[in-house]
Amino acid sequence: MKKKMSKKMWGGRFKKPVDKAFAEFSKSIQYDYRLAEYDIYHSLIHVDALHREGVITKGERGKLLEALGDILYEIKKGRFKFTAAAEDIHTDIQNKVEKKVGTLALKLHSLRSRNDQIVFDEKFYCIDEGQKLLNLLSEVLQSLLWLSKKNKNKLIVGYTHLQRAQIIPFSDYSMAFFYMLKRDFDRIANFLGTLCPALGAGALAGTPLRRGAYRKALDKMLKLKARSFSLDQCLVKNPLDTVSERDFIVELLSALAILQMHLSRFAEDLILYSTKEFNYINLPEDFCTGSSLMPHKKNPDFLELVRGYTGRIYGNLLSLLATLKGLPLAYNRDMQLDKEPLFSSVEVIKDELKIMARFIRGISLNTNQINKAFEDEGLYATELAEFLAMEKKMPFKKAHDLVGKLIRYSEDKKIKIRNMPDSMLSKFHPGLTAQVIKRVMNPHYVIKVKKSISRKLPTFKK
Amino acid sequence: MKKKMSKKMWGGRFKKPVDKAFAEFSKSIQYDYRLAEYDIYHSLIHVDALHREGVITKGERGKLLEALGDILYEIKKGRFKFTAAAEDIHTDIQNKVEKKVGTLALKLHSLRSRNDQIVFDEKFYCIDEGQKLLNLLSEVLQSLLWLSKKNKNKLIVGYTHLQRAQIIPFSDYSMAFFYMLKRDFDRIANFLGTLCPALGAGALAGTPLRRGAYRKALDKMLKLKARSFSLDQCLVKNPLDTVSERDFIVELLSALAILQMHLSRFAEDLILYSTKEFNYINLPEDFCTGSSLMPHKKNPDFLELVRGYTGRIYGNLLSLLATLKGLPLAYNRDMQLDKEPLFSSVEVIKDELKIMARFIRGISLNTNQINKAFEDEGLYATELAEFLAMEKKMPFKKAHDLVGKLIRYSEDKKIKIRNMPDSMLSKFHPGLTAQVIKRVMNPHYVIKVKKSISRKLPTFKK
Amino acid sequence: MKKKMSKKMWGGRFKKPVDKAFAEFSKSIQYDYRLAEYDIYHSLIHVDALHREGVITKGERGKLLEALGDILYEIKKGRFKFTAAAEDIHTDIQNKVEKKVGTLALKLHSLRSRNDQIVFDEKFYCIDEGQKLLNLLSEVLQSLLWLSKKNKNKLIVGYTHLQRAQIIPFSDYSMAFFYMLKRDFDRIANFLGTLCPALGAGALAGTPLRRGAYRKALDKMLKLKARSFSLDQCLVKNPLDTVSERDFIVELLSALAILQMHLSRFAEDLILYSTKEFNYINLPEDFCTGSSLMPHKKNPDFLELVRGYTGRIYGNLLSLLATLKGLPLAYNRDMQLDKEPLFSSVEVIKDELKIMARFIRGISLNTNQINKAFEDEGLYATELAEFLAMEKKMPFKKAHDLVGKLIRYSEDKKIKIRNMPDSMLSKFHPGLTAQVIKRVMNPHYVIKVKKSISRKLPTFKK
Amino acid sequence: MKKKMSKKMWGGRFKKPVDKAFAEFSKSIQYDYRLAEYDIYHSLIHVDALHREGVITKGERGKLLEALGDILYEIKKGRFKFTAAAEDIHTDIQNKVEKKVGTLALKLHSLRSRNDQIVFDEKFYCIDEGQKLLNLLSEVLQSLLWLSKKNKNKLIVGYTHLQRAQIIPFSDYSMAFFYMLKRDFDRIANFLGTLCPALGAGALAGTPLRRGAYRKALDKMLKLKARSFSLDQCLVKNPLDTVSERDFIVELLSALAILQMHLSRFAEDLILYSTKEFNYINLPEDFCTGSSLMPHKKNPDFLELVRGYTGRIYGNLLSLLATLKGLPLAYNRDMQLDKEPLFSSVEVIKDELKIMARFIRGISLNTNQINKAFEDEGLYATELAEFLAMEKKMPFKKAHDLVGKLIRYSEDKKIKIRNMPDSMLSKFHPGLTAQVIKRVMNPHYVIKVKKSISRKLPTFKK
Repeated sequence: MKKKMSKKMWGGRFKKPVDKAFAEFSKSIQYDYRLAEYDIYHSLIHVDALHREGVITKGERGKLLEALGDILYEIKKGRFKFTAAAEDIHTDIQNKVEKKVGTLALKLHSLRSRNDQIVFDEKFYCIDEGQKLLNLLSEVLQSLLWLSKKNKNKLIVGYTHLQRAQIIPFSDYSMAFFYMLKRDFDRIANFLGTLCPALGAGALAGTPLRRGAYRKALDKMLKLKARSFSLDQCLVKNPLDTVSERDFIVELLSALAILQMHLSRFAEDLILYSTKEFNYINLPEDFCTGSSLMPHKKNPDFLELVRGYTGRIYGNLLSLLATLKGLPLAYNRDMQLDKEPLFSSVEVIKDELKIMARFIRGISLNTNQINKAFEDEGLYATELAEFLAMEKKMPFKKAHDLVGKLIRYSEDKKIKIRNMPDSMLSKFHPGLTAQVIKRVMNPHYVIKVKKSISRKLPTFKK
Repeated sequence: MKKKMSKKMWGGRFKKPVDKAFAEFSKSIQYDYRLAEYDIYHSLIHVDALHREGVITKGERGKLLEALGDILYEIKKGRFKFTAAAEDIHTDIQNKVEKKVGTLALKLHSLRSRNDQIVFDEKFYCIDEGQKLLNLLSEVLQSLLWLSKKNKNKLIVGYTHLQRAQIIPFSDYSMAFFYMLKRDFDRIANFLGTLCPALGAGALAGTPLRRGAYRKALDKMLKLKARSFSLDQCLVKNPLDTVSERDFIVELLSALAILQMHLSRFAEDLILYSTKEFNYINLPEDFCTGSSLMPHKKNPDFLELVRGYTGRIYGNLLSLLATLKGLPLAYNRDMQLDKEPLFSSVEVIKDELKIMARFIRGISLNTNQINKAFEDEGLYATELAEFLAMEKKMPFKKAHDLVGKLIRYSEDKKIKIRNMPDSMLSKFHPGLTAQVIKRVMNPHYVIKVKKSISRKLPTFKK
Repeated sequence: MKKKMSKKMWGGRFKKPVDKAFAEFSKSIQYDYRLAEYDIYHSLIHVDALHREGVITKGERGKLLEALGDILYEIKKGRFKFTAAAEDIHTDIQNKVEKKVGTLALKLHSLRSRNDQIVFDEKFYCIDEGQKLLNLLSEVLQSLLWLSKKNKNKLIVGYTHLQRAQIIPFSDYSMAFFYMLKRDFDRIANFLGTLCPALGAGALAGTPLRRGAYRKALDKMLKLKARSFSLDQCLVKNPLDTVSERDFIVELLSALAILQMHLSRFAEDLILYSTKEFNYINLPEDFCTGSSLMPHKKNPDFLELVRGYTGRIYGNLLSLLATLKGLPLAYNRDMQLDKEPLFSSVEVIKDELKIMARFIRGISLNTNQINKAFEDEGLYATELAEFLAMEKKMPFKKAHDLVGKLIRYSEDKKIKIRNMPDSMLSKFHPGLTAQVIKRVMNPHYVIKVKKSISRKLPTFKK
Repeated sequence: MKKKMSKKMWGGRFKKPVDKAFAEFSKSIQYDYRLAEYDIYHSLIHVDALHREGVITKGERGKLLEALGDILYEIKKGRFKFTAAAEDIHTDIQNKVEKKVGTLALKLHSLRSRNDQIVFDEKFYCIDEGQKLLNLLSEVLQSLLWLSKKNKNKLIVGYTHLQRAQIIPFSDYSMAFFYMLKRDFDRIANFLGTLCPALGAGALAGTPLRRGAYRKALDKMLKLKARSFSLDQCLVKNPLDTVSERDFIVELLSALAILQMHLSRFAEDLILYSTKEFNYINLPEDFCTGSSLMPHKKNPDFLELVRGYTGRIYGNLLSLLATLKGLPLAYNRDMQLDKEPLFSSVEVIKDELKIMARFIRGISLNTNQINKAFEDEGLYATELAEFLAMEKKMPFKKAHDLVGKLIRYSEDKKIKIRNMPDSMLSKFHPGLTAQVIKRVMNPHYVIKVKKSISRKLPTFKK
């Protein structure tokens, strides 16, 4: 037991060993192993700074860097295995270094605190994963552009309140999601621009190593990694703030919640449009599943899961917000629980985006079914009223009323407006003739008269 | 690939194999393996019902029951290993049965739907885990009773607004948490009373097997398990409701959220009372941890994690509520995502309760420090005002004002009320004398005059 | 200013008047006026107890009861007007009593605390409003029963994954919501059974008035109100728990969140089924609205608002849960913020239920459109497979595969299964003939063969 | 009734009047009246565009602009009164214009949709209120700088896990909150930079008015308002996206949730530090309240309310996120419910900031009490270990263990480290002498040796 205790990174003043069930409960290694790479970076910089400040010798520095480099290599190769018995990733790496260099490892954790390490690691994780999210999101954006271009002369029914509203270009529809997700892209990109992994905060009060030493060590490291951060930003401004704040994680979780909300709306629409009833689009079969009981089913499971995961992504955001509420300064153990929500949201959304980019390219339109819907005369009601307002100078509200009554008349008498003779139409307005109706109640007219919108597709290069 | 497809429980009408990344994304085996035991129960009942209805022969029934029994045995022994390649636990068990009995296994999934299985499994899970939660909660309740009895003559400072309010019996304080958690106990117990694992809903429309056959099969099974449910309740009343509803999970997650809220308040108080500043209680060292940088630290990590997990438990509740919002009837794939929040909340809270029951028994009071606090004269202000109201018949509001001014005078003049001569006191009220002050400003007087409360400790047997 | 200060219920020890902006910020009168009635009850009981304990004379008691009675009369008549300048409803009523009886009012607040009053008031509010919710909910349940009976021989398409699944009785569909809401009814009713407005907790430590006095005063009051609570339950068991707990509000908000989730699902389905595309039902026109631009629109706004309010009801639950997280014992001012979420959820849901009960009675089915959907042959696929399993003893999984292939063949060859000659069908299975197809692919057959479900409509009397 | 109907902005095709209870339920005027000013702006621009496109004459334009200008003047003067009977603010203003100019008003709503108006109004609201939030936040930041400067040579105890950790400069503590809130400032400012009130989307499909007309009308209007937006950004890119998206509101609510989380932490700390037990700071009395029962109480109610409102602000965010989940394109009535959460969060936080800026300036430090805490020897443990690592070249982990044992020895033997003779100290390490202890265990030494932090206070000008 004693020996086991010594493998912890603390414990000198403790008489009793830690309770086993509690030790198990408080562990984070089973999820924070994802930070291994970034924890190595912290150590590499720290070792260099220790040497610059004369706390360790050049030889010691070399040995430590080599041991750390070996572990990093394993991580990069995907061969790193965390030790389940370790308390957390920091302890695990410390122990692994000790295995390689013996008691020299005891100097590795000089003058630093896990409070400093963890926030460095998490920021680096956000930077790396944020970049991956942007890459995946840009694939989805490209797919949406592709879909819009492919169907650039196609029209579709536009809805409000899920009731047929007006005919619109299909690309207006598909590009709506492009613009939503493009704002998500910008939101995440802006967020990444504010991030910089800082070090030197100690537990809450700073350390005896000079600012300049950190700066040089960091500079060297970042050059090696070909990363360009502003060095000034990467030094600690306020150590309490540094170790106790997680607003950057909440900000990312918020941005992901908004992105997920957009995905849920896209999924909902595709589910609707691929029902037998709407039937405007066909979904790619290889992203659908069947039923173990009902042989005919082709279910849009991918889209349902995307919609369903919205709960998870919202829940992760709330989870962290609630955890952080009212915490006293500086670090509290509660903060350990920031990681699972973060990892969960990042991983779910990466999976969704990865599949969505290919899913979109499997969507095709059922033009026949769409054209059938265009026979619905209500779809031209607005243009009819606009025609009366624009060309016949009727106050719009009157034109609106008039067309409402015309529709009701058509329903009551069971006669299509398109089939009404001039005599019938003119009772509503002298300017209404069968010829006018034919001109206005036409999908292409509908699109042509909309002048407030520019429909040039944007270019998007990541 | 073809062979792999045949291992799915659906797929006859599909031309293309399912996309790999999507298959991976949509799997649930990595978490729904927890339901293996309950899924076997469903199969045992179902096989029996199939036989009663003549769909399978007696011999087939025997072989299937044996195969299922073997798997159940593995589960009970903790030796069950799910196959990561399977889509979900239902498929995994189906495949395992097939390995044992060959093509006969193809009859196992006759006339039933995974929609029916999953809700049966989840209800059974809630029943079993709910019972475990009650057992653990009752341990915590016993510990709180133990703590209250152990310190039954001790007093402590009571707070409102985190400002010293009045002196109270320590057991009033500790029993407050008992009563909160007792309501949680009752809430969960009441919930469990409403639960019954139903079967026979099919995918959404029922099955051709007769109600009576299910009833007899279920009866037999429950007798074996020595479980007493109302059989009528365990038959499906409405198949759409059965397969599409998850309110029972939300109800459990809500009850757990309230329980967790109580735990967070208890944790917060213990954290406060064990600071150097309050110092009213000592926490058990084996449930605390140290710092890797600061050698003197003894941190209440267990309590902080309990407080911090509140975010998780709230997040899980929101997650499922959001997922279920606005879902059309009946089953949708979104519902698959009900499981992780459920498992997460159940498992976290079980861990917390398990440790908390022992943690409480390690708490001791710092009587010296508490007694020092009793010197604070503000703590007797209410009783002084009440004395004036009760014995001197002052309107309480006047007595309240008077005592407020007395305190302010004491602060301004830097003279303790206890040290004021009669002449000084009588300026505030003729009935105020040094003797009265001595009588009233006494912790035991404070407790004695409270007549509205019965302080007999309740008995609690699970 | 001084005079204004004296109207507060505290302040003796304060030198400076309270900051105006802060006073405004901390007021609750603008929403807690809803508790006026219950606050009077507390005072009525309290005055009686004060008299029993000799704190006030019989004459004083009489005057106070009369003044309180007058105010109660105003409240009951809907004529009560709160004074916006008052801090809260307790202060407002105290001041109003003072206006009526002068300085005698200063005795009203003897030996009690607003901490005790507020929790009494809130519990009473929950009891009263909970009963109203049950009444309204029972109207909705009656409407659902009415709808089910009215259409008791009608069938409809059942969905899973929003894809056509199987034909079901319409009443199975409508009664699914009945059963959901019936559980909500039971959940709220059970909750109300646990509620009892307690008094005598003081600020946190009890009061000098004897338990028996409260008991008698309470008994008298409840008899007057013809209310039957268990008196023992209405006395304070633990004063800290009493004043600092709000789990009863969270429990109600949870029950309302589940109810709202059910309403959101009902709303979603009705929105879908009333689209031009599904067109299974007609919504009552007087609960729909139009568009200011598009003359033809008939939008299901009521249903959309119901669905949309789900966010509000969830948000209210989470708001209170987050507020209560980690609060130290006993009362903290944070708790004042429990009221707005409570009032909001109760009021929104009462409105929804009130309208929903009438809305449901305006729904009619489009039988023509539904029958047209029944031509979809996929809807009979399950019954075809079940037929093969039950009558031809095929392993179900094989039957499932066979039917899957039959459907695909039908789609590829563009020939309806109903139109296939025996020679074509027998290639799939010798038992498949045109006659069999005709028998099985029939909506009434589909319903008739489901034996696992009892379809007797339940009776429901509130 | 008929007349009443005609006051709605729709209804031509409706036979039945709208149900009264539903009309009441669906109204938004009781909260969206806050948008009156912005709705006028939309109308001013729209009227100008209508004229440019020849839909109305110059004279009509003049009359409409004048009527609108009159209403705007009322709004600006704070004299605007909304008509409770109106459906929403758009209808209310339309009706008010009609009162002024008669039937000409019927032309005001030509070729535009409330879908377009509402999103314009809400964006303008966010821009205006966002600016006010920045102004208030900058007041708080100034107050924090003031507090830090005022106490710039003061030290305080730093905490982790709410256990005493290390001595820190008070300004490190107070500036931690400065940096948190500064990031909130930047987050909101960045958000505002992305906002531009767009118009011309119609209901979802654009309008027949030309892009250039909107551009010129908008340009004119913005010049009048001395606002500089990018005009290109203010034209609609995608009309579906424009009318159906509310991500800008979610983004603001997220930023406010993070800001509120920071405020809750600050409030919690101030509550703690002003307890009798910590007693490091005095709170301004005019922001505290007393108790109606306990005459001595001075409660930090402002801070408690700030902490408590965290639930509200989180709930508002989740409310809108949940409402938006899975909504089909384009506008749905659910979206109406975005306004109350937005208004609630903006108004609560404005109140909090307004008071907080003055509250902070009322805080004073209890230097005596703080200095007393500095006698706690644990506070110097880290510096002792760091001394051994830096000056005696001990591996830090060994130094950490050594100091842990020294502390435990001191506790067990009840002898202060400061009082240990050299002979006792040297048993732990030869380099430890009473002189060393005296040097290291000194608050000013502790601060001086921290070299990783720059403590120059930043400048902040809004």
